[in-house]
Amino acid sequence: MGKGTATRQMILEHAGRLASQIGLEGVTIGRLAGDLVLSKSGLFAHFGSKEELQLELLDFERERFVKTVLEPAFQSPPGEERVRAIFEHWLDWPEKSALPGGCFFVAASFELDDRPGPVRDRLAQLQGEWFETLARAAQSAVKRDHFRSDIDPQLFAHEMYGLMLSGHLARRLLNDPNWAARTRRAFDALLARSRATPAAAERL
Amino acid sequence: MGKGTATRQMILEHAGRLASQIGLEGVTIGRLAGDLVLSKSGLFAHFGSKEELQLELLDFERERFVKTVLEPAFQSPPGEERVRAIFEHWLDWPEKSALPGGCFFVAASFELDDRPGPVRDRLAQLQGEWFETLARAAQSAVKRDHFRSDIDPQLFAHEMYGLMLSGHLARRLLNDPNWAARTRRAFDALLARSRATPAAAERL
Repeated sequence: MGKGTATRQMILEHAGRLASQIGLEGVTIGRLAGDLVLSKSGLFAHFGSKEELQLELLDFERERFVKTVLEPAFQSPPGEERVRAIFEHWLDWPEKSALPGGCFFVAASFELDDRPGPVRDRLAQLQGEWFETLARAAQSAVKRDHFRSDIDPQLFAHEMYGLMLSGHLARRLLNDPNWAARTRRAFDALLARSRATPAAAERL
Repeated sequence: MGKGTATRQMILEHAGRLASQIGLEGVTIGRLAGDLVLSKSGLFAHFGSKEELQLELLDFERERFVKTVLEPAFQSPPGEERVRAIFEHWLDWPEKSALPGGCFFVAASFELDDRPGPVRDRLAQLQGEWFETLARAAQSAVKRDHFRSDIDPQLFAHEMYGLMLSGHLARRLLNDPNWAARTRRAFDALLARSRATPAAAERL
């Protein structure tokens, strides 16, 4: 890794930590320059503008999410096993991402939903892709007869995403010690009611 | 309503609109003074500090939520009917609250979870109370044999809250035209699997 790449990486790492705590809007060239004791002109050389920096940050965090959640989960065979693997790696993601403010994408989603522009559009695209990944994983479990053929994969994704968001709120805002156990029970129940037959479940 | 009270109400109305769009942290005495063409000293006379203003705003929006969601829903008889009434009024709340940025409390919850202090504490208290209200409504449906006796009211609240959050994200970030239909279907499915027996459901 060249010196330029290493500096760039270091800047994005710090920007991600900041964004997870104070929001993407607080991640300015000036703030980063101050925190990292770099010149503003040096930062502008790496990222031409605040918007460009935010767009790069989205892709940087997406790559981290792919490596931390998606790739390990896709080691599991397609079907119910993979759906569960996605859930478990996703639940661990805030720790593994090592961001102090929890899930980067959840924080950004509720912050940017009212701020039209390229950053919001890119985030919506990434979140839409993740939603589709969840729906496809459920669809794949249907094809393998792990899940009932009459489940709606979009609805499955809606429910799976929802119980994660509820868990996020219970954990981070309410400091509820039962957040993980309850989120897992809600997910187990979602799997149980999606299963084709007891026999299909036993084949796993 | 005296002139002082009317001004105070007008300030809080505007503060709520701002917070729903740019976040609670952006609601400063200076910004409000500029937007409303009031003197900063006048604003300080109403609210001694930014923190005091934010705390008053939470209570102001809570009161609006109680009048718009809770009170109308509690016109319905306790049990499954009231649970459904809570859902329907809650789903309509972002429109009825007339805030441009959607649900004030969802936006604030994901913004403030990393900002320790009295405002975060008060918000956590309000959100915890709402969560308990949902759980008690489910419990009440159990007592009336509308819901099965083995459901966990806390889990019910977790799932109900989750599908609303998923709907919020699908609507506001993804601009998904199916957000309402899917949120309602997810809720109908939650009710269906919580019901005691087909007979209990028919009694409604």
